[in-house]
Amino acid sequence: MNKAIPEPVTRLIDSLSRLPGVGPKTASRLTYYLLRAPDEQSLKLADALRDLKTQTRFCSTCHNITVDDPCPICADPKRDPRTIAVVEEPLDVIALERTGIYTGLYHVLHGAISPVEGIGPEQLKIKELIARVETTGALEVIIATNPGLEGDATAMFIDKQLQGKGAKVTRLARGLPVGGDIEYVDSVTLSRALQGRSQL
Amino acid sequence: MNKAIPEPVTRLIDSLSRLPGVGPKTASRLTYYLLRAPDEQSLKLADALRDLKTQTRFCSTCHNITVDDPCPICADPKRDPRTIAVVEEPLDVIALERTGIYTGLYHVLHGAISPVEGIGPEQLKIKELIARVETTGALEVIIATNPGLEGDATAMFIDKQLQGKGAKVTRLARGLPVGGDIEYVDSVTLSRALQGRSQL
Repeated sequence: MNKAIPEPVTRLIDSLSRLPGVGPKTASRLTYYLLRAPDEQSLKLADALRDLKTQTRFCSTCHNITVDDPCPICADPKRDPRTIAVVEEPLDVIALERTGIYTGLYHVLHGAISPVEGIGPEQLKIKELIARVETTGALEVIIATNPGLEGDATAMFIDKQLQGKGAKVTRLARGLPVGGDIEYVDSVTLSRALQGRSQL
Repeated sequence: MNKAIPEPVTRLIDSLSRLPGVGPKTASRLTYYLLRAPDEQSLKLADALRDLKTQTRFCSTCHNITVDDPCPICADPKRDPRTIAVVEEPLDVIALERTGIYTGLYHVLHGAISPVEGIGPEQLKIKELIARVETTGALEVIIATNPGLEGDATAMFIDKQLQGKGAKVTRLARGLPVGGDIEYVDSVTLSRALQGRSQL
């Protein structure tokens, strides 16, 4: 290591380089930016990183990230407890909340089945979902995994596991994205849109 | 703010978004990555950020970032104290050290004169450079500011200030980048390469 770079500087560059999408060049640019920025900015970021891990946990019901357990959504008496939307990641909960039309609860799997990455059903919160459907007597499980190979495999696995548990299992519709241009839509999506066509 | 996002999560997204080149999307992607990564990774990064500010300072001689004052380069008896390379940023010191052929000392200005950004000579370590040249009796000041409008303005200002102080003032050569293709070199660089041509 170069004599011109003090150890605390190389250590931060190294730590930042471990983040996804951040290479050594970006990491050193960010580090030298922070060196010149007010002390407060680095310290606030350091606190936020520490609090992220110490102040948050997973909701014991839906496994979303939360400060309090149960999370505000699970604890909200106005939400419909008989409908559960199953998503891969906490970010998907935020996306569905943004629609403003979903009033049920969630279940965060923390991933999707992916043989390539060595992720099987037992690494996901699927067992917990089945138990939750059984104990709460949910009427509908909306599978909102990502539209792709892994999300589809996960959806099919969950559907099979939920057979005979009394809940209706549904999936989000596939079709044209709103604002999209048919000319540029990929053929798989277009096929799904054709198959799922509805009467005007 | 969305009920689905706990406060420590939004706070980290917010802190990360303040970094240059990191938008809200990247910030939330990094945050959710850290939520799933081992605790150790966030805590190491938090420590590195804290140490960057608490364990480093500026060398009172050359103004480079350092743990000890004077910095290892200024304290090295094998370096030639009569030659001072003037650079804009600590990263420029690292670049010059990488060449392996420079044996003199450095002086970090911490920026360049930029009327657009409201940076005048008094915000840079120029006063300190002049005083340093006078007290140490340096024989050569190599101005290694960036080849551009601001670097050039800074170089000219320093050159004027150093008139009659006994030190030779030089600049890094302009010309074709090694490995570059004349076809693609911009005309300003090519003009400089022509003007600075040397006999084979």
